[in-house]
Amino acid sequence: MDQHLITGNRQSLADYRPQHFLWEQRGAVGLITLNRPERKNPLTFESYAELRDLFRTLSYVDEVRAIVLQGAGGNFCSGGDVHEIIGPLTKMSMPDLLAFTRMTGDLVKAMRACPQPIIAALDGVCAGAGAIMAMASDLRVGTARSKTAFLFTRVGLAGCDMGACAILPRIVGQGRASDLLYSGRSLGGEEGYQWGFLNRLLEPELLLENALSWAGEIASGPSFGHAMTKRMLHQEWAMGVDEAIESEAQAQAICMMTQDFHRAYHAFVAKQRPEFQGD
Amino acid sequence: MDQHLITGNRQSLADYRPQHFLWEQRGAVGLITLNRPERKNPLTFESYAELRDLFRTLSYVDEVRAIVLQGAGGNFCSGGDVHEIIGPLTKMSMPDLLAFTRMTGDLVKAMRACPQPIIAALDGVCAGAGAIMAMASDLRVGTARSKTAFLFTRVGLAGCDMGACAILPRIVGQGRASDLLYSGRSLGGEEGYQWGFLNRLLEPELLLENALSWAGEIASGPSFGHAMTKRMLHQEWAMGVDEAIESEAQAQAICMMTQDFHRAYHAFVAKQRPEFQGD
Amino acid sequence: MDQHLITGNRQSLADYRPQHFLWEQRGAVGLITLNRPERKNPLTFESYAELRDLFRTLSYVDEVRAIVLQGAGGNFCSGGDVHEIIGPLTKMSMPDLLAFTRMTGDLVKAMRACPQPIIAALDGVCAGAGAIMAMASDLRVGTARSKTAFLFTRVGLAGCDMGACAILPRIVGQGRASDLLYSGRSLGGEEGYQWGFLNRLLEPELLLENALSWAGEIASGPSFGHAMTKRMLHQEWAMGVDEAIESEAQAQAICMMTQDFHRAYHAFVAKQRPEFQGD
Repeated sequence: MDQHLITGNRQSLADYRPQHFLWEQRGAVGLITLNRPERKNPLTFESYAELRDLFRTLSYVDEVRAIVLQGAGGNFCSGGDVHEIIGPLTKMSMPDLLAFTRMTGDLVKAMRACPQPIIAALDGVCAGAGAIMAMASDLRVGTARSKTAFLFTRVGLAGCDMGACAILPRIVGQGRASDLLYSGRSLGGEEGYQWGFLNRLLEPELLLENALSWAGEIASGPSFGHAMTKRMLHQEWAMGVDEAIESEAQAQAICMMTQDFHRAYHAFVAKQRPEFQGD
Repeated sequence: MDQHLITGNRQSLADYRPQHFLWEQRGAVGLITLNRPERKNPLTFESYAELRDLFRTLSYVDEVRAIVLQGAGGNFCSGGDVHEIIGPLTKMSMPDLLAFTRMTGDLVKAMRACPQPIIAALDGVCAGAGAIMAMASDLRVGTARSKTAFLFTRVGLAGCDMGACAILPRIVGQGRASDLLYSGRSLGGEEGYQWGFLNRLLEPELLLENALSWAGEIASGPSFGHAMTKRMLHQEWAMGVDEAIESEAQAQAICMMTQDFHRAYHAFVAKQRPEFQGD
Repeated sequence: MDQHLITGNRQSLADYRPQHFLWEQRGAVGLITLNRPERKNPLTFESYAELRDLFRTLSYVDEVRAIVLQGAGGNFCSGGDVHEIIGPLTKMSMPDLLAFTRMTGDLVKAMRACPQPIIAALDGVCAGAGAIMAMASDLRVGTARSKTAFLFTRVGLAGCDMGACAILPRIVGQGRASDLLYSGRSLGGEEGYQWGFLNRLLEPELLLENALSWAGEIASGPSFGHAMTKRMLHQEWAMGVDEAIESEAQAQAICMMTQDFHRAYHAFVAKQRPEFQGD
């Protein structure tokens, strides 16, 4: 019996044509490109929702094993569009506002819940919800000229947007996160790399290539194991150490039942490179 | 109807004259100066309690929107005075000891609970309870010659004082926090800056000026939003990611109902700088 | 009445001769040496279990007050042996697999639960379960040529092994931890030092000496207080800030009842160096 039929994991995105960004499948890597370069790739109500839906769908797509998220034209993302989002928000009722903030939060929840590790490739402007999408990715590569700004305070709001007060301090520490959230200032690429916000600092012309190549390495790894790593990083976020250790004992025992674990062992014994297949 | 009357938020500190430190209001910034420079500004039972009470009162003071905390005479604070605190403690009963450790803990709780972001300005000695007050602030600026020492171990005690085992690791990481807590050694300014303990490294003659100017910028920002940022950084400390995201959806929807959010939008459309008023 | 008899804390390890590693007591410092240098000190089912039992026993051994953990022959530990561990695991039933992952997790639990601070001295290869033992130590010193690799992904498994998804992000941040766990790459000594994974970067010929000397300083400190620091760092891991502050108020009040606290005060008054005795 085909286990994939049971779980529905054979859903395919090969013919997927989103309306508000670009989607490309390169082997087992999915490439998302925010694509309104003339406005530095802002988000709208519609693009938020479509991104959320894509990341939710990715839970059922076995053929995609890693994601790269970038912006077109030398900028990552300028965040929620002032005219298309902020203007309308100033006229909304509380239920509508909450529906909006929950929808944006659902995008981050979906990014954290999908099994594929996500690499954000940051160049130029990375602001507001753009900074959040970078933060909500698993790994970040960026250029020295990238400018990441959690600028909610600049539009009169709080820094607690889409999980920033929970996630950002765990990446860069409470003190540095407080600086970014109270000031809304831009974090440059070099400083971001020193702080561990960026995993790699790259020349602009190598950015996408490097992100795709890293995603390719991840995609050729044991993707069931990678998905479990991602899930457990999420799951253990607020767990005590002993409880986390028991959770990992169970999770890793599950992974020891996979073929990929056996493949790695047999390849090692045969002095070959294992070819992982994700099952 | 005046909402401030309901919440009592019009309490004023303009005429406040504390007995054990200095208080000055410069516009919307409150400046606290520990002021026993001949002893490097130690704390006593009375100054602990008076600081705790001030930070508690600040929850009801709308006119103060950011705090700077400094020491007089080139040192921040030498911690609990050996003669005035440690000596008496060696003679106390358990109920009295617990009353003392709870009072000092209440100072940190009050610093974390007041809505104003607190900037600690560190120069010279910053030891024991002084190091704790620096750690419990939201932001830290300091000089290269500042020496921050969690020196509880040097007086035969544990590093778990006033929240240090919870808060310090979230600022500098578990490994570096362990080093500081087991050794009691001094963390110099340069190292502290590299670790993210200090947000800014400054020349001594610019320290206070810079801290006040940063506090001024924060105070002129959307103070309702800033207070929500501070509250949520606290609130989400031990929350799962998904729960934190829902909490932020609610908190940010509340902020979207403020006038400051509308002011920012209208200023942007008019290509002007917003003037935030904290409501 | 001798309190030690009540708690059983007079158990001694002076004559302890483990089968699968070396144990040496140098004053109040216990030195554990993984000792199969020709294989870079791998772990086996038996050595895992014997290490776990030693760390459990250490809870009852007052005469040992700090631990140094090293490997023989210029390498720390190559992790679970491929032939002696990974091979057999590929043939096990789920209950046996879970028994194994729980046993390895129990080693980390025992390292976190014993009252003695543990210093790992890292040189050369520090891989898999070796990287975990380094991570599970309280402090880490290492050489530039040390290579720490959480390489579980290389053998087809997940990064969530023995608590890595909980503990590693708290030491180096979520972004850097994700890099290490998804790639399995080696973290060199210099990078590890910059990240705060290593507390000290040392020349190979000074590594053990420095680790022993640091452990000696810790052992001559207030060991009841140190044990409380270690316990509270563990206990407050997933606690809210206010709850952590109350926990520390209780823990520190207990420490204020110790003789070491009184010794420190009297030594200070007499302008002498305190001689702590751990009670």
